[in-house]
Formats: sequence, structure tokens, C-alpha cells
Amino acid sequence: MYDCGKIAIIGGGSWATAIAKIVVQHTHHIGWYMRRDDQIEDFRRLSHNPSYLTSVHFDVHEINFNSDLNKIVEAYDTLVFVVPSPYLKNHLKKLKVRLKDKFIVTAIKGIVPDENLICTEYFHQVFDVPHDNLACIGGPSHAEEVALERLSYLTVGCSDMEKAQSFAEILNSQFIKTKTSTDVIGIEYSSVLKNVYAIAAGICNGLKFGDNFQAVLIANAVQEMARFLQSVHPIERNVYDSVYLGDLLVTGYSNFSRNRVFGTMIGKGYSVKSAQMEMEMIAEGYFGTKCMKEINRHWHVNMPILDAVYNILYERIAPKIEIKLLTDSFR
Amino acid sequence: MYDCGKIAIIGGGSWATAIAKIVVQHTHHIGWYMRRDDQIEDFRRLSHNPSYLTSVHFDVHEINFNSDLNKIVEAYDTLVFVVPSPYLKNHLKKLKVRLKDKFIVTAIKGIVPDENLICTEYFHQVFDVPHDNLACIGGPSHAEEVALERLSYLTVGCSDMEKAQSFAEILNSQFIKTKTSTDVIGIEYSSVLKNVYAIAAGICNGLKFGDNFQAVLIANAVQEMARFLQSVHPIERNVYDSVYLGDLLVTGYSNFSRNRVFGTMIGKGYSVKSAQMEMEMIAEGYFGTKCMKEINRHWHVNMPILDAVYNILYERIAPKIEIKLLTDSFR
Repeated sequence: MYDCGKIAIIGGGSWATAIAKIVVQHTHHIGWYMRRDDQIEDFRRLSHNPSYLTSVHFDVHEINFNSDLNKIVEAYDTLVFVVPSPYLKNHLKKLKVRLKDKFIVTAIKGIVPDENLICTEYFHQVFDVPHDNLACIGGPSHAEEVALERLSYLTVGCSDMEKAQSFAEILNSQFIKTKTSTDVIGIEYSSVLKNVYAIAAGICNGLKFGDNFQAVLIANAVQEMARFLQSVHPIERNVYDSVYLGDLLVTGYSNFSRNRVFGTMIGKGYSVKSAQMEMEMIAEGYFGTKCMKEINRHWHVNMPILDAVYNILYERIAPKIEIKLLTDSFR
Repeated sequence: MYDCGKIAIIGGGSWATAIAKIVVQHTHHIGWYMRRDDQIEDFRRLSHNPSYLTSVHFDVHEINFNSDLNKIVEAYDTLVFVVPSPYLKNHLKKLKVRLKDKFIVTAIKGIVPDENLICTEYFHQVFDVPHDNLACIGGPSHAEEVALERLSYLTVGCSDMEKAQSFAEILNSQFIKTKTSTDVIGIEYSSVLKNVYAIAAGICNGLKFGDNFQAVLIANAVQEMARFLQSVHPIERNVYDSVYLGDLLVTGYSNFSRNRVFGTMIGKGYSVKSAQMEMEMIAEGYFGTKCMKEINRHWHVNMPILDAVYNILYERIAPKIEIKLLTDSFR
């Protein structure tokens, strides 16, 4: 059995905190990189993340915090990256230690901008990490529910099944069930696309479409996702699996979903800017939409929902017009 | 093009009322069978159904009401049956006119008890209606939303595509988009199964499982549905289509769903009897569960969700125990 060695978490948001909780419960020691020293200090003082999942208590003696990414990368074998994809490059800029011998697990549900690469591929192409050392975590998983210890299913994707298995064991617990998969590419892309479709669901909600139409939208979104995955990485995969369809459902239907809330505001007539100001944050699907649109320029897959969301967010076409067109394409 | 002739609605509930609204808007005349004369009188006086979708106004001069089923069957060419499946046999008992030359459309989402037959098959075997004269209506369609004229997608299934097309044209409107299919069996079974899965979703909700698990449950339910349909009627079908997956989603996720509400009460610890009393009605999925369980005794398809719901509702096994077992079988 592969040994994941010492594990560190890179990132300080809610999903990072949920994963840290799961891992440290098993290993009783983790490294944890956060960018800001004041956040680390507050965390130490309060025994919980001062900004996210504040109800989750940690034994801070089990955590080696550091705001220097190099120190963490140097000292740890498995690095779990959980930063928003638009900021990944910025974090890695400071890196002087090489990554290629590390086991890199990405729990980032997004595309690296400019390069327009899924995260594992970015680590491979830019940091020479071999595919065997690259894994991803997928599955329907609101961090808030993991914090509440509500049963969730996660999938670890890695081309090396032994490594996937080994990391899955670390996540396994009473409230986390894990599976493994070799479909890293499919899992990463589907976790980006589902954010785009959650925005679409929100837009339709904001336009006062009902549950009947919502169901038709999601059913068509699964098909669009399946078409794209099959073009980009044609293997035999079951898109009904919880890591694909389940993740789409939880994001498209849940009130926890920031992307859906963002879409709802857009559908109600807010501009992108005012929706972002109102939410005090940027929904990841906003960036994901642009990246996926650009990636699909190469693949030419028929993706009417992606196109509609892109036109609404980036070309300022009225939501009503785009969604009307969409309704005619649905089956 | 096939001519549907004069169209009558059989049944007085909310879905019957929604379909009547759609049809009469197109034809400006319908026959309408309701069992109770006092309901018909009230309808005439109020210009709306006194009990269901009371906000939907009808021009009662366009409706030929009758509480004698024979009168309606005799005078009309296309008969749209929309009564709860447990009562279908009772309504048909009074029938003296033969059905075999009529075009029968069933919008009943249920199984005929005792015989354990889907409705079209019941009309075929018991009333000698040829398959070509039997159609069904499926798709994600809360009657309440159709009443509000929120865009909905319906699918007309019939082995005779010309007839399906012809009836679909009658349903088509600004707020109803229609498709056609030859998969009558698949549509009928999926519309029964989705009620079973909505009860399962409700039970898990009542047991305080969260959105993450709900998504895994629904993803597994689609797969269970696909397995069953493929065994019973092995044709090439796309279970992501809105008539299958979409109908499941709208029932499993919507607050309009009576089956989900019923399941939630069961999950919270209500007995079947007290849940039914509290709701002042019986969720159709309660009967559907028993029928499907009995039908599957013949097919032996692996259906852990159906089995769990059956055991909870009919064998009085504690929901917690059954759902725990289920969580171990999920992928």
C-alpha cells in the first residue's frame, strides 16, 4: 500500500477547513499553509478558523501552521491544494522548492486562468509533476455539511489506483464514504462545469422559471456535460455516478450554492458587478464559464447552456433572450 | 396527420384540471367526466374547479361535464385518463361502452393494483385496446406550475408516432413544449418509480441527511431506474432525457411533491397511518412502492432503494436501519 506520508493543506477557505478536519482526525498531524499570519494567529487563539466553518473545533497542537509556502512544501509529502483556482498561480509564484516528487492532491474545483488548464494538468505541465503523482478530490460536498458531519461521498481520482486508494483511506470516516477513480480529467472538468450549470439554474430561478423547467435544465446539463467529457477524454464512464451527476445536483439545487445565488441575482437583473458586490465575493463559476468557453473553442462540443451563460455574463446579452433561445434547444 | 377528434378528460384532480386547461385552450371544447355531480355544479357556478387549481378560470360553455362515464366515452374519440391509479378500476366498472376503438391517453402516474400492470397495458389486456391506440403523457410537470403558466416540457408516448405527434400538437402552447417517444413502457414505469424515489428522498430528509447525501441518493436512483427499464423493456433510451431524469428531479427535489412530504414524515418517525391522516391524503408512491416491489419479484432487478422504501412502509423496519444499509450500497 502506498504511504501518503505527512500531509499538508494549502489554503484557508471553507473547503480547505473541511478537508483539514477530515484528514487531521485520521492523522493527528497536518501542515497547513495560509497566506495571512493574522489569520493563523486568530486560528491558534480561537482553536477554529476565524473566517470559515467557525463551528469546527481543532486541536491546534496537531497543526503546523505556516504562511511560507516553501516551508510547508519542503516538510510534507502529500500536498492538498484547496485555493480558489484564480489565485493558484499567485500562491505558487513564491515557490522555490520543487514539487515533482510530491504527491499533489487538488481539491480545487476550477480551471487555471490564462493557461486554461485543469489543475492536475497545470501541475504536470508547469511543475513537471508526473501524472502518477497527481490526484483530485470530487463529489457532492458542501463544506458546510461536512462540518456538520452529515454523510457525504467523496471520490479520489488518480491514474495510480494504489495512491488513490491510500488517500481515500485517509478521508474515510463515519461521515465520509470514499470511492476511487482513474478519470481525473472527467472529474476535474465536471466539477468546473457544474458551477456553470448552477449559475444557469440560478438565472432561470431569477427569471421566475419553476421547478418543472429547472428539472429539464438540469437533465439537459448532464447531457451537455457527458458530451463534453466524452469529447475531451473518451473513456467508458457512468455520468450518473455521484461524482458527476451528484456533484451537479448538489450545486444546482442547494441553497448553500454560491454559484446558484449569483445566477439568481443575474436573472433578477443585477449586473455582474453589483451581484458580486452584494455577495461580497466572486462565484467561482463566473471564471469557470469564461475558461470553459475558451477551452471549448478548441473542441467545438455543442454546449448551448455554457454558451448562454457566457453570453449573459460576458457579452451582456439579456438573460431573458438567452434563456428563451435555450428553451428551444432542450429535449 | 392523425385526427384526435373530440377530446374528453376523465378525472377531476389537479393534474386533470391542468391538462383540461391546456387542451381546451387549443380545442375550445372538451368533454369532462367527474364522479360527483355536486363538484360539477360547483364548477359550473364558479367557473373553476372547486377543489383543485382554483385560480385557473375556465369558460364553462366550452366544457361538456358529465358524471356518467358512459355518456362521455360514447361521445368522444380521445379519452385522457387522469384519475389516481388505485381508483381506475372502480371508475371503469361502470363502463358499458367499448373502449377498443377509442384513442386512450393515460396521464396516470401509477400502476393498476392487483393486476400490477402499467395503465396502457391494463387497457390493452382488459379492454382490448390495441397498442397503437394507447398513449401516455410523461415529463416533469407539477400541475401547480402548469396552472401558473410556467414553462413545462411534456412527452407523449405512443407506439404510433403519428398519433403521438397529433396529440402533442394539441398540448403545445406558449408554456408547454412537447416531445414524442415510442417508449410507452419506459415512460410509465419511470413515472411510478420516481414517486418511490421521492419518498426515499423525503425519508432521508426526515432523518436529517443533508444535500450532499440527497444528491448521491438521486444519482443512485437514476441508475436503479435505468437498470429496471433496461430489464423490462430493453431498447436504446437516454435516461438523462427530461421525461425520465427530469421527472425524477422535479419530484425528488420539489416542495410541491406530496410523495416527498410523505417520506419526510416517515423519516421523522410518523407511522404510515398518522402521516396519511396528517396529510389528509395518500401519496401515490405509497401504492407504487408495493406494486413495483411485486412486479420486480418477477424481474429480479437489483433495486436497493425500492427495497428499502418497501421495508420501511410495509415491513415496519426502522427508517434509520434501512437507510444505513442503503448508504453502504451506494456508489
